Amino acid sequence: MPTLVLIRHGQSAWNLENRFTGWWDVTLTEQGIAEAKAAGELMAAKGLDFDIAFTSLQTRAIKTLNIALEAMGRLWLPVEKDWRLNERHYGGLTGLNKAETAAKHGEAQVKIWRRSFDVPPPPLEAGSEWDLSGDRRYAGIAIPNTESLKDTIARVLPYWEQRIAPALRSGQRVVISAHGNSLRALVKHLSHIPDDEITELEIPTGQPIVYELADDLSAKDRYYLSER
Amino acid sequence: MPTLVLIRHGQSAWNLENRFTGWWDVTLTEQGIAEAKAAGELMAAKGLDFDIAFTSLQTRAIKTLNIALEAMGRLWLPVEKDWRLNERHYGGLTGLNKAETAAKHGEAQVKIWRRSFDVPPPPLEAGSEWDLSGDRRYAGIAIPNTESLKDTIARVLPYWEQRIAPALRSGQRVVISAHGNSLRALVKHLSHIPDDEITELEIPTGQPIVYELADDLSAKDRYYLSER
Repeated sequence: MPTLVLIRHGQSAWNLENRFTGWWDVTLTEQGIAEAKAAGELMAAKGLDFDIAFTSLQTRAIKTLNIALEAMGRLWLPVEKDWRLNERHYGGLTGLNKAETAAKHGEAQVKIWRRSFDVPPPPLEAGSEWDLSGDRRYAGIAIPNTESLKDTIARVLPYWEQRIAPALRSGQRVVISAHGNSLRALVKHLSHIPDDEITELEIPTGQPIVYELADDLSAKDRYYLSER
Repeated sequence: MPTLVLIRHGQSAWNLENRFTGWWDVTLTEQGIAEAKAAGELMAAKGLDFDIAFTSLQTRAIKTLNIALEAMGRLWLPVEKDWRLNERHYGGLTGLNKAETAAKHGEAQVKIWRRSFDVPPPPLEAGSEWDLSGDRRYAGIAIPNTESLKDTIARVLPYWEQRIAPALRSGQRVVISAHGNSLRALVKHLSHIPDDEITELEIPTGQPIVYELADDLSAKDRYYLSER
């Protein structure tokens, strides 16, 4: 039976400051590091093991993965990193904290951007301090300047189909370390969650989510490892 | 001009205890972690950058790489891990400290094993506490039970030819985090060092060694980054 585990990165510096992060590359806090280590220790204690790992191109997810794998004695596993597992791009909200955003745009509008399925925030302005067009990790990639959750899903799922699903079908045990919204994309797909519900689904940081999958990769069970 | 940087992992727990380590998977000491971080900071300060990284299947080399890449803001680079970059397998000497080895086998014999080019130590006994045949990271690999430096070179160079040299030829900038003897194999090859001299060449931990290569990958210059 194919095994898949999803982990949202541990607390980041901007989670703590309550700022919209998206593609901006912030690192983990001390608490985030501790969460990642605890996730690895929990997986090892529960007897979970993997053959391959997938993560984004963002430090907080890669570091979470590395710390968890080290705690499992599995730093040697192959790791594939891809921008399509990056966090949702928050466009012009990037770098703003929630209070600043509400002051600028109004509470109601912010709630729409955070909780609607297909309404993207205003685009990031070119030349903004959060503009990533000069970051060579994204060379050759059409960097979005904003994304709705629907947009995020539209680039996560092709990666799932091209790289992750084939690994699972070939019998490999897979762990994915990624972000709140790239993981929502996968949970929506695997658990058939409607558009208006997926935006409300909170994925906690550093908590391994286990999927037990049928051979056709349909979900038989999904649970937090900490609850079993 | 192709750029290649070699880094021997930072101090490990058994470097500190002066024990033969080989393929046994020990981790870095606090000093080793600091060496890895300093190596990354030095590379960033000197303006070095990379497109791909190679390392072994051993925690001390992988962790050194991860720490150095993080210090450079390059944790997102692709990393390929392969057993052929592992340390020389020290056979029956694995786990012994230098004093125990001398007491058991005599100083002169130990010097031969350490410093000869083609004399391997006695094989590791099957069922020894250092036997790795049950370690699934090496599934499908004919794990050596001992190696001379010559034996180590014989499995490092095919990997160089198959994976690393093509990356350099295609214009990628390469960093390799590995071990004293797998790096000796590469230095011998690139710098045409004779058999009886390579065994005396000490490769210090955590010191980036820079190779400036011609397009045919012949070495034009080799130096410690800390000295430029």
